[in-house]
Amino acid sequence: MNGAESLLETLGHNGIEVCFANPGTSEMHFVAALDRQPHVRGVLGLFEGVVTGAADGYSRMLDKPAATLLHLGPGAANGLSSLHNALRARTSMVNIIGDHAGYHRSLDAPLTSDIEGALRPFSDWVRTSPSANSIAKDAADAIGYSLSGQISSLILPADTAWNNADQYTQPPNAVVPSSVSIKPVDVDAAAARLRDSGPRTAILLGGRALRTSQLEAAARIAAATGATLLAETFAARTERGAGRPTVTKIPYPVEPSVELLQNFDALIFVDAKPPVAFFAYPDKPSVLTAPGTTFFTLSPIGADSLQALEDLDEAVGAGSAGNHLADAVGSSRGRSSLLAELAPAPVPSGTITSAKLAAWLSGAIPENAIVLDESITTGWDFYAQTAQSQPHDYLGGTGGSIGWALPVGAGAAISSPDRKVIVLESDGSGMYNPQSLWTYAREQLDIVVLIFANRKYQILRNEMSNVGVADFGPKAESLLDIGNPAIDWVSLSHGMGVPATRVETIEELDRDFRAGLAESGPRLIEVLV
Amino acid sequence: MNGAESLLETLGHNGIEVCFANPGTSEMHFVAALDRQPHVRGVLGLFEGVVTGAADGYSRMLDKPAATLLHLGPGAANGLSSLHNALRARTSMVNIIGDHAGYHRSLDAPLTSDIEGALRPFSDWVRTSPSANSIAKDAADAIGYSLSGQISSLILPADTAWNNADQYTQPPNAVVPSSVSIKPVDVDAAAARLRDSGPRTAILLGGRALRTSQLEAAARIAAATGATLLAETFAARTERGAGRPTVTKIPYPVEPSVELLQNFDALIFVDAKPPVAFFAYPDKPSVLTAPGTTFFTLSPIGADSLQALEDLDEAVGAGSAGNHLADAVGSSRGRSSLLAELAPAPVPSGTITSAKLAAWLSGAIPENAIVLDESITTGWDFYAQTAQSQPHDYLGGTGGSIGWALPVGAGAAISSPDRKVIVLESDGSGMYNPQSLWTYAREQLDIVVLIFANRKYQILRNEMSNVGVADFGPKAESLLDIGNPAIDWVSLSHGMGVPATRVETIEELDRDFRAGLAESGPRLIEVLV
Repeated sequence: MNGAESLLETLGHNGIEVCFANPGTSEMHFVAALDRQPHVRGVLGLFEGVVTGAADGYSRMLDKPAATLLHLGPGAANGLSSLHNALRARTSMVNIIGDHAGYHRSLDAPLTSDIEGALRPFSDWVRTSPSANSIAKDAADAIGYSLSGQISSLILPADTAWNNADQYTQPPNAVVPSSVSIKPVDVDAAAARLRDSGPRTAILLGGRALRTSQLEAAARIAAATGATLLAETFAARTERGAGRPTVTKIPYPVEPSVELLQNFDALIFVDAKPPVAFFAYPDKPSVLTAPGTTFFTLSPIGADSLQALEDLDEAVGAGSAGNHLADAVGSSRGRSSLLAELAPAPVPSGTITSAKLAAWLSGAIPENAIVLDESITTGWDFYAQTAQSQPHDYLGGTGGSIGWALPVGAGAAISSPDRKVIVLESDGSGMYNPQSLWTYAREQLDIVVLIFANRKYQILRNEMSNVGVADFGPKAESLLDIGNPAIDWVSLSHGMGVPATRVETIEELDRDFRAGLAESGPRLIEVLV
Repeated sequence: MNGAESLLETLGHNGIEVCFANPGTSEMHFVAALDRQPHVRGVLGLFEGVVTGAADGYSRMLDKPAATLLHLGPGAANGLSSLHNALRARTSMVNIIGDHAGYHRSLDAPLTSDIEGALRPFSDWVRTSPSANSIAKDAADAIGYSLSGQISSLILPADTAWNNADQYTQPPNAVVPSSVSIKPVDVDAAAARLRDSGPRTAILLGGRALRTSQLEAAARIAAATGATLLAETFAARTERGAGRPTVTKIPYPVEPSVELLQNFDALIFVDAKPPVAFFAYPDKPSVLTAPGTTFFTLSPIGADSLQALEDLDEAVGAGSAGNHLADAVGSSRGRSSLLAELAPAPVPSGTITSAKLAAWLSGAIPENAIVLDESITTGWDFYAQTAQSQPHDYLGGTGGSIGWALPVGAGAAISSPDRKVIVLESDGSGMYNPQSLWTYAREQLDIVVLIFANRKYQILRNEMSNVGVADFGPKAESLLDIGNPAIDWVSLSHGMGVPATRVETIEELDRDFRAGLAESGPRLIEVLV
């Protein structure tokens, strides 16, 4: 057995089922080894940003890692910006990056580069395996490390792949890291605060605390204490919609988030951090909370947030713990309901506006859909308007690296073949990883993509005034305009094998969207806004 | 004047004329400052690989830097793989990367990352400017450093852009670095070797030594001494074709390059390094020269290679120096001519094969064209067959980062608006930076793109056997196949505003190619092979 085969056996043994790949010469033995490992499937991306983005989407849905296979420094480099988002999403991922054979590196052949150095800013764990015999152990370490929501990057020189792993006998087990512990003193402090001044307290939920079980525990606490539930602005995945607890997302712009947060003089963090502005702006605060706000960390990043919330629920007492959520919420009548009811907005019609799109979307999301939202300025009201849609998973931007929704959508679809995936993408953002569409077609993924074509970088037009530029000239104007020439998304999509149409009214959009949902396989709709 | 304005003034003052850009919020002041600086033009790319690749092409043609403008860590990351090629091309480039305002970084907002760390493996020089007042000096340093064929990356926190540069009075001058010197002892050693054993000696030319003046000096030396002229396999730009000295490129595959190099027991390096295999392969050598080959470094990397060759020409004496090249070459009759004559291959016809394409191309290249060749397996014979084409500049792959020809072509066209640019691209490679086509359309660049569509990663199929995998299964097969679905390059191209056609015979190709050359503006031809 060679080193490559020992790698694949170790991946399969430890539950890795998918390897998103864009391989090259130095990875050929790993590619060949795929056929000797029944448990690991290869999925090709034509660009590495698609590969690492898809692995992010896969892990966001399943809370387990996929592997990636990348080609030396430049191949890894093309995947880094998707890794940045994955880091911020606290995604589990195992990257396998080929390198030159050890004895070849010192010759400084053209493809030689500092691969470890390139990966380190965008990984939690980086290691180069020195020999065929070390691959299996290193791969098990990489998998184990990744399981707590981390990015592992393992560099494998080509000779470690083709050499004989003569000391290998069986695949080692990945060691699951011990999770960060919940401290009773932190639970007691948060409980005391809530009992003392619940209505002036917000519980800020982030990361994996935005899943239904955690949200229900948090909702019981809120019902019992009068606290407000907040969600971090950039969450990897939120389970929401009808029948699930509602939670208010901290807005992206500075002013409304400051306005929201001044209602609280204490924040309790559950898998979340103190909220700060996305960008700095002249004469605007970077810290969004009111001066003097007290911070309580109930559940540190990566800890068992469900346990923490259940402990807190019990600690705040008041008959809440153990009761059904509906009873608890029933006892808080007079405040707005904490459980969302199914109540989509009235169906709009005619020409398309952002507001009409939000209303339409609220009724269009099918039950159990996975919704990825990179609609940026077009979708400013999508999140709020879909709070009472059918229950769905909502995947958001996490690290600010543009163009994530198309690749992350591929991985989400592969993770969950029985669910419909809806990708809400803006035309500017969609051009960073458009190759994702080819993987949609190759794998016949059940994805409906809406491209919102305003034909400009509208967000940057808004940001010009935010950073204090009152007016700007034609050169600057030209760098914010992507309408000359207009991108024809229908042609682009056809070019990569995904059926596509263009719509200009809500009725056309609704017709094509429902047709896309009714079929299996991908479909793209360019929405002129 | 704010820091951003001092930057643009410094760029313009020091000869920077083009800024390839994909900016974001933290770069808005730099964008706005463009309109206050008449000497610097902004060119938008929809993806950062296009931006840094275009800057590479610009510098390869003009031997001077363009600037780029990139958005924090993820924006820079998307440009890194083009930077890898630019590093290996010894390109001059000045990257400007925005970052969060200094006081905002410690808050760890979502877009925060180690930007210096990300850039360092792919830059020669990295610096973060601490204040508005330091920008001008730092920018002049970045420009100066880049002038010797280096990549400078300057990180500018957003507040350095918007703050007042109150100590700024005028733009500082970039200091041109002193070049590496040519040592008389090295000239004498090379001359002695050539006099002693010219026919068993090769002069290996690389980098800027593949320009006409250097080639002519080298050809005089070869004519006088019987030495052979070789070119490095991966050269940034070679001036070649009718009327220029011929030079034999070291082949990419291991076996023929070893066979070629065993004819010499000494190599003289002129802006080149000892030749090594691109990849390591089991049971094949990584060092391509015969054991015991002696190495002479006449002109170190980055030195004045023309001066070195002229010194050597004088040192080898024999009446060569000062003579016209034609006379010198005339004196070497009996050996194959050292100056290429115009002699394209006979025009082929009918269905398209690689061999016919090479023959067709040899007659199709118009005088003074810029040819970018990333045709990979389809173009295995393009270089040899075009040695006697009309004079042209030939730009090749340098660092092995895939997908370079489309973006580098954009920069080459912008550098040289009076010349025709021909991009020879393979379908697999073209999918790494396809967004380049949009910039072609936006800027109405005079580029004819040929996409050679074999619908597979043919190079990797070849490499499978090179690395010792005799046969491989369906999963591996699937990762080397990009024909399911087939990419429709005509649709893709139309989607980005570039007129396109598909051809299946040499006659159709010739017709559409000539039509593309006759028009101004871009045109794409998908060539089914």
